[in-house]
Amino acid sequence: MLRRTTTDIRKANRLDVLRRIYAAGSISRQEIAADSELSFATIANVVNDLLSAGVIVEDRFRDSGGGRPRAILTPNARRGLLVGVDVAETYVHVELFDLALRPMHASEHPIGPETNRPEELAGHIAAAIEALLLECGADRADVRGVGVSVPGQVAPEHGVSVFAPGWNWHDVPLLAILQDRIGLPLYLDNPLMASTVAELWFGAGREADNLVCVTIGTGVGAGIAIHGSLYRGTTNAAGEWGHSVLMFDGRGCRCGSRGCVEAYVGAPGIMATLAEVDPSHVLLRGGDQTACVQGLATADDPRAAEALTRTARLLGAALANLINVLNPEAVVLSSWVAGHLGPRLLPEAAEALAAHALDRSRTAARLLLSDIPGNPVSLGAATFALEGFLDEAVSNASRTTSGRPL
Amino acid sequence: MLRRTTTDIRKANRLDVLRRIYAAGSISRQEIAADSELSFATIANVVNDLLSAGVIVEDRFRDSGGGRPRAILTPNARRGLLVGVDVAETYVHVELFDLALRPMHASEHPIGPETNRPEELAGHIAAAIEALLLECGADRADVRGVGVSVPGQVAPEHGVSVFAPGWNWHDVPLLAILQDRIGLPLYLDNPLMASTVAELWFGAGREADNLVCVTIGTGVGAGIAIHGSLYRGTTNAAGEWGHSVLMFDGRGCRCGSRGCVEAYVGAPGIMATLAEVDPSHVLLRGGDQTACVQGLATADDPRAAEALTRTARLLGAALANLINVLNPEAVVLSSWVAGHLGPRLLPEAAEALAAHALDRSRTAARLLLSDIPGNPVSLGAATFALEGFLDEAVSNASRTTSGRPL
Repeated sequence: MLRRTTTDIRKANRLDVLRRIYAAGSISRQEIAADSELSFATIANVVNDLLSAGVIVEDRFRDSGGGRPRAILTPNARRGLLVGVDVAETYVHVELFDLALRPMHASEHPIGPETNRPEELAGHIAAAIEALLLECGADRADVRGVGVSVPGQVAPEHGVSVFAPGWNWHDVPLLAILQDRIGLPLYLDNPLMASTVAELWFGAGREADNLVCVTIGTGVGAGIAIHGSLYRGTTNAAGEWGHSVLMFDGRGCRCGSRGCVEAYVGAPGIMATLAEVDPSHVLLRGGDQTACVQGLATADDPRAAEALTRTARLLGAALANLINVLNPEAVVLSSWVAGHLGPRLLPEAAEALAAHALDRSRTAARLLLSDIPGNPVSLGAATFALEGFLDEAVSNASRTTSGRPL
Repeated sequence: MLRRTTTDIRKANRLDVLRRIYAAGSISRQEIAADSELSFATIANVVNDLLSAGVIVEDRFRDSGGGRPRAILTPNARRGLLVGVDVAETYVHVELFDLALRPMHASEHPIGPETNRPEELAGHIAAAIEALLLECGADRADVRGVGVSVPGQVAPEHGVSVFAPGWNWHDVPLLAILQDRIGLPLYLDNPLMASTVAELWFGAGREADNLVCVTIGTGVGAGIAIHGSLYRGTTNAAGEWGHSVLMFDGRGCRCGSRGCVEAYVGAPGIMATLAEVDPSHVLLRGGDQTACVQGLATADDPRAAEALTRTARLLGAALANLINVLNPEAVVLSSWVAGHLGPRLLPEAAEALAAHALDRSRTAARLLLSDIPGNPVSLGAATFALEGFLDEAVSNASRTTSGRPL
């Protein structure tokens, strides 16, 4: 049985309060309490932790009507910098944030399919971070943490990439390899978890506590948030909806199984569907995923339309599965394929969803395109770095302050 | 956004502690704390609530080695009686429990498909409860609550059956109809939620905090427990895995959709598969689900074996979907079809599961047959009645005790 310890609970409470402050931009303790499951006393304690760690600041305002001054909490943007890294199979995206998680500068470096050795990829990531800091004139000493998202399954607590099918990685100790090259506090996770946290802090999660963040890119997944917290599952592997079976004995999937959702609605799956409709379609020439998906977004020929219709019907049924099982308040579509094709797929996908989802769950769930500007994965990765920095800062503070219980 | 209130949190904590006392049979406050997310102070407060409500009692033992006496908490069996009712499409099962949830007596009344009007069904349920109390010589005044499980989707807080496809029910105010006939405190829920709670208290949930309870009967579903609590979803509709799509554009399902898990692994689905293999198979004569499933459990002809193999492969893939999305510690198979056919289906289902589930999630999850003796649905329904009685008792106590905060 996996018990959460008291320390885990304190961390979770801290993160819950911090999330509300960041999501609101500025908020009082009373407003947090009105909206939270936590007691006012717990919130006051947690706020003290956050203030001593320096990640938030407190200002006092007097209402225009007079009366007692109200204490307002805001993120402390000037406490330092954070880096978020989104490593995908076709690019490395690095982004600099202030400690309020406001984006400052981003750059993206394409990588080819030949870049798949861990040491080589680590070199690319390290170089991209160096260049980013240089471009911004940022001081390394101000960087509080670097969050790195890599595709596939990861064990964040060990910094290990457990399985990345696109690179054929098994149990790669990526953080140890990166640590030698970067020398900053590093935190590893995957795009599913990162996107979901970004939605919780800055997207649909501000309105919905039970939410599913569906990422549709080359790979496909569904991050799950329950009661406002990321649900990681027993071994940080929850959300592999992309490898759930939608068509028993159907198309082969790169995971080795057949009929997976990803084999139909991920970028290569959509290309396969287009090839079924028209093997010599112009958008298939060159075999470039990005070009094909971008082309489909504006294509007006009937064969492209047919491929999109088939994709939308499959996507709608697969989304209905999530809604039937999880009964969430919101399903948010994220990542680059959803960004390009979402507006075209959504009407027909919603129809198919309605045909497959039970009424009571369907009417409870809003289906949305992510409205997070920029890259939610690098934002989510930077959020993990903020979380790591906060845990460090609080545990340092408690070591140096006498009489304070851990 | 659906916020839980402080009262909800107190209720959840109470239930968490009560569950540990019932699961253990007898336990100290210290042992609860060692195993729980709650602080010792919270546990001590909750235990006081449970003691004043009379649902548990405290005894003091001195260890054989001497030393301080330890206070041991046990369920208070003599505080009253509970009734659990499992209403299925083919029977009404009523069961009497003491307040320690130990089964005392059960009886089962077959009902035919013609019994589908709410008033008629309510009459059957009321008569079955009356007969049960009479058979046991039990005093109505000692019954603290009656939990009633009906198939389909329910709104427990309103006592309404929202949708029961087998009876073509929509928004039936069942508890109000029952109340007139029974006159005891009533609590409504469905078999998915009831079985999952029974597993949490008395089955695999004693070892696994993240668990999925898969019920396979006429209908099919998957109750979800996360961090030791039942996950109900946004509108008490979570767990409708039976109506998730396994075979896109496949077999029609009675929910109106196509290719649902239930259409393949529910009892009628298994009969349909047997009919595909051999339309004139002897076990299909008469069209009786129960007889067919029982017959398949011991059939040794190759056509029955082929139908079971097909069913096992589909079941394994559908279970892999749950494991990939939820990454649980345990998946428990429950209900009557699983009871009869589980031993025959499990080896081939486990093979198919391994082919479809990602390694990291597969190795984390144990696949089990429920080991709860008797009927887990009536047990779970009685557990909901206990929960309701406890909430009433605690809120009465807090109204009559001065100076005690709500």
